[in-house]
Amino acid sequence: MLQATERRPWHMSAFVTIAFALTPMIIAADDDVAARVALVKESVNTYRAAHEAVIIKDFIELLSLPNDAAVLADMERNADHITDLLELRGFKTQRLRAGGAPYVYAELLSPGAAETVLIYAHFDGQPVQEENWIHPPFVPTLLDGPIQAGAEVIDVGEVKGQFGPEWRLYARSAGDDKMPIIALMHTLDALAANGIERSVNLKLLLDGEEERGSPSVGRIIDENRELFEADLFLFCDGPMHQSRRTQLVFGVRGSTTVDITSYGAVRPLHSGHYGNWAPNPIMQLSWLLTSLRAESGRILVDGYYDDVVPLGELERDAIAAMPDVTEMLQDELAVNTPEGEGKRLEELVTLPAINARGIVAGGVGEKGRNVILSTATTSLDLRLVPDQTPQRAIELIKAHLVRQGYHVVADDPSIETLRAHRKVVKLDWHDAGYPAMRTALDHPMSMRLTGLMRMIAPDLIVTPNMGGSLPLHEFSSRLAVPIIILPLANHDNNQHAENENIRLQNFWDAITVYAAVLASFGDTITP
Amino acid sequence: MLQATERRPWHMSAFVTIAFALTPMIIAADDDVAARVALVKESVNTYRAAHEAVIIKDFIELLSLPNDAAVLADMERNADHITDLLELRGFKTQRLRAGGAPYVYAELLSPGAAETVLIYAHFDGQPVQEENWIHPPFVPTLLDGPIQAGAEVIDVGEVKGQFGPEWRLYARSAGDDKMPIIALMHTLDALAANGIERSVNLKLLLDGEEERGSPSVGRIIDENRELFEADLFLFCDGPMHQSRRTQLVFGVRGSTTVDITSYGAVRPLHSGHYGNWAPNPIMQLSWLLTSLRAESGRILVDGYYDDVVPLGELERDAIAAMPDVTEMLQDELAVNTPEGEGKRLEELVTLPAINARGIVAGGVGEKGRNVILSTATTSLDLRLVPDQTPQRAIELIKAHLVRQGYHVVADDPSIETLRAHRKVVKLDWHDAGYPAMRTALDHPMSMRLTGLMRMIAPDLIVTPNMGGSLPLHEFSSRLAVPIIILPLANHDNNQHAENENIRLQNFWDAITVYAAVLASFGDTITP
Repeated sequence: MLQATERRPWHMSAFVTIAFALTPMIIAADDDVAARVALVKESVNTYRAAHEAVIIKDFIELLSLPNDAAVLADMERNADHITDLLELRGFKTQRLRAGGAPYVYAELLSPGAAETVLIYAHFDGQPVQEENWIHPPFVPTLLDGPIQAGAEVIDVGEVKGQFGPEWRLYARSAGDDKMPIIALMHTLDALAANGIERSVNLKLLLDGEEERGSPSVGRIIDENRELFEADLFLFCDGPMHQSRRTQLVFGVRGSTTVDITSYGAVRPLHSGHYGNWAPNPIMQLSWLLTSLRAESGRILVDGYYDDVVPLGELERDAIAAMPDVTEMLQDELAVNTPEGEGKRLEELVTLPAINARGIVAGGVGEKGRNVILSTATTSLDLRLVPDQTPQRAIELIKAHLVRQGYHVVADDPSIETLRAHRKVVKLDWHDAGYPAMRTALDHPMSMRLTGLMRMIAPDLIVTPNMGGSLPLHEFSSRLAVPIIILPLANHDNNQHAENENIRLQNFWDAITVYAAVLASFGDTITP
Repeated sequence: MLQATERRPWHMSAFVTIAFALTPMIIAADDDVAARVALVKESVNTYRAAHEAVIIKDFIELLSLPNDAAVLADMERNADHITDLLELRGFKTQRLRAGGAPYVYAELLSPGAAETVLIYAHFDGQPVQEENWIHPPFVPTLLDGPIQAGAEVIDVGEVKGQFGPEWRLYARSAGDDKMPIIALMHTLDALAANGIERSVNLKLLLDGEEERGSPSVGRIIDENRELFEADLFLFCDGPMHQSRRTQLVFGVRGSTTVDITSYGAVRPLHSGHYGNWAPNPIMQLSWLLTSLRAESGRILVDGYYDDVVPLGELERDAIAAMPDVTEMLQDELAVNTPEGEGKRLEELVTLPAINARGIVAGGVGEKGRNVILSTATTSLDLRLVPDQTPQRAIELIKAHLVRQGYHVVADDPSIETLRAHRKVVKLDWHDAGYPAMRTALDHPMSMRLTGLMRMIAPDLIVTPNMGGSLPLHEFSSRLAVPIIILPLANHDNNQHAENENIRLQNFWDAITVYAAVLASFGDTITP
């Protein structure tokens, strides 16, 4: 396998027509690729249509294995089963572990392929509360629609002809995140059955501890770095766009959290006897919060945007091309005036955000007492974007508070400290946090994948970065490979909750998408 | 009995030398009064010194009666006992009631007296948690000092000679508020034993439901208005100044409370996916709170000070003459910079205050979740001063919020309301609240009482109004009589808590003060 840098230098991207990625027409030099992709799509769909019952039964078998992320034995059993599936398709597999649950690593070389695609998915699941499920979470159940629409159970063995595209398979991890594993297996079967050659080598990293935050993934990469050499990293997890249009996501926000405590007198005071005299810690927090953030959501901390990489024209155009959900969201969420001064949600999530997620001091309602409190605490979560780091955000916020006249401490202040300083505030950073990750839309791999995806999904949604956070920096900080998120599950898959499900059309589309990538990605060229 | 207005017209106060009340010298025309007060003080103290054991035993008997305000039978038994004490001293008594616990009303005419003093005290007590008391709350126990200083129990029957002035009697209601009742009885005994005539008629209102907020006192006054005709109303409840100097308090602040709820989206949203877009209700409350109140504590609501009666020169001078406790409080409470821009605590409590007493939204620490919340609620208590009314304060705050762009509602807003308005806020006023009460320092009765008190306590502390609130408007709104608060219990009497106590010197001083009032108040003249 060649490194990307050896073959197609990164800086070539400067020469590309930046409008390309957004043009719905395919103007890639290689019309042959488009023709081939159309053929692959048709062949694979035909194969799948003829094998739906087998594919579903195969998925049911995997979903029947309990996979509570906290139960190591569950993870081993799932890893064994998946290893069998992989080896049946010719993969070389390894069990990787670094003190936690097992990861399944697998490689499938392709004759003549120069490039390698690394695909990530995970096979562990959130713990289940059986009593909340209409059908037991590990008794996968096929329904002829969404459960809340009164759908009826389908007996898989009795289905004549094709399965309905709106049918749903209900089970833990149907949506998050066993589907990509089974889809890939049947993609390979479909390609083989049609005699279609793979254009890329394939590597898989299947995570057995994602729902616990993948605590050992960093060590696993460090200890097996050569295994992860690849040209493109497809991160296959998470729900796709609400419009059900095929989507590529090029980044995530980083995250860190902090609790901020302000101080009044050392003990709560009678609000009559001391009202107007004793400093009020709730008011202190109010001034502090309003000093951090304007009503628009804009962060007022000096220098906070200095590290923010502005969106390029490609990113701006991609956002403009996304379905506008603003008014739908306003209606659904009863929001008259969003923050952000009229900017689109999709643009706003490319900016850093400070969210006051909690504030607790004294009581309200029946629990209200006429006292001036001694302390008040608020909790903030900070969403970070490239190239912010949690460390720098922390420093800037500290410096801001010092400029606001606060004496900033990390531990509970002594009486002497409180007596000595006009305003004291404790910052309690819960964890180190992690930075954002965003792969540039004009990276050659981004452009090649976007072009290929448009061949099978002309209305592809290109999302520069999603608003949520994933610790992709564990990969991006260790591996030179560009990471692109390819979400495949329906957005209404109830992930992490009861009645998790996969919509069959999403499952079928995943097979098509994988087929196009495996059959043709190696043939695409940088436009 | 004559009405004050018939005998010494109120407007005469305009002619008095306003500096008088603060001059430590007695410049009353009547030096005879001063001489007589000195004699009364000496006679009564001598009598008391000879009868301490009897007085203490009498107090112990009353304190032995359980008086949980919630137990009606307790109140009846106490009322019976007190009625016996009163009738023994020649009082005409009545049991008053208006649907709640009994009040004991009593009258003692004095031959030749033209004026009447009405004294208020209460005999009910806060519920006790026996297990927290070192000595059982209804087994009154005499100690030779404060319990926390390791004081030892004194056997009352074994005391030879005088009781120590720093000894303390521990029992529920020893400090709050049975002491004035027993002190008055022995004042009357002392006067009689010395052949000292009373200069005023005496009326007593002894409350059996004060700890429950005296819910029926208004109706009791309305239904028995003629009983409460008097020239001076002494309200004998509450702890006195921390300096242990004799104190008169001429007013209290009013009070009302409100919960304010702000709204984000109709459901909590993922702070990653919606951060910078969804309005944050914690931030809304922060802006709202900072719009209400400056860092100095000054209220920023337009017109809020319009109804505030400015302090007169007498009040300003009285405050200037009070012991300055600022630095002591700053040390004790670890407050580097109080609110109020350097004004004294005693002045600040003569101004209206808005206190944020609680704020609750989401969680902090381990309970923090990365969501943008749907609602946030803060609770405010408003301290009012003359002539503010709760109704007017409510109106002004509502108008302020409307000016800030809020749509103000009284009930949970509908989805349609939230969708239709940029910022929605719910105001939930817990109760009607009540206004402040302050008797002018230049009222003739104020000046006469102040002058008299200085004869026995030259370092008298004159407090224009205390910071706390008492529903004295129940009296002041119904009765024309000037109300002055005469606190007699030591400040460290642990009222409402375990190990409640009275310091004996406070008990003895109460007898002296009452003796001076009964023997000489009728002889004082407006300076």
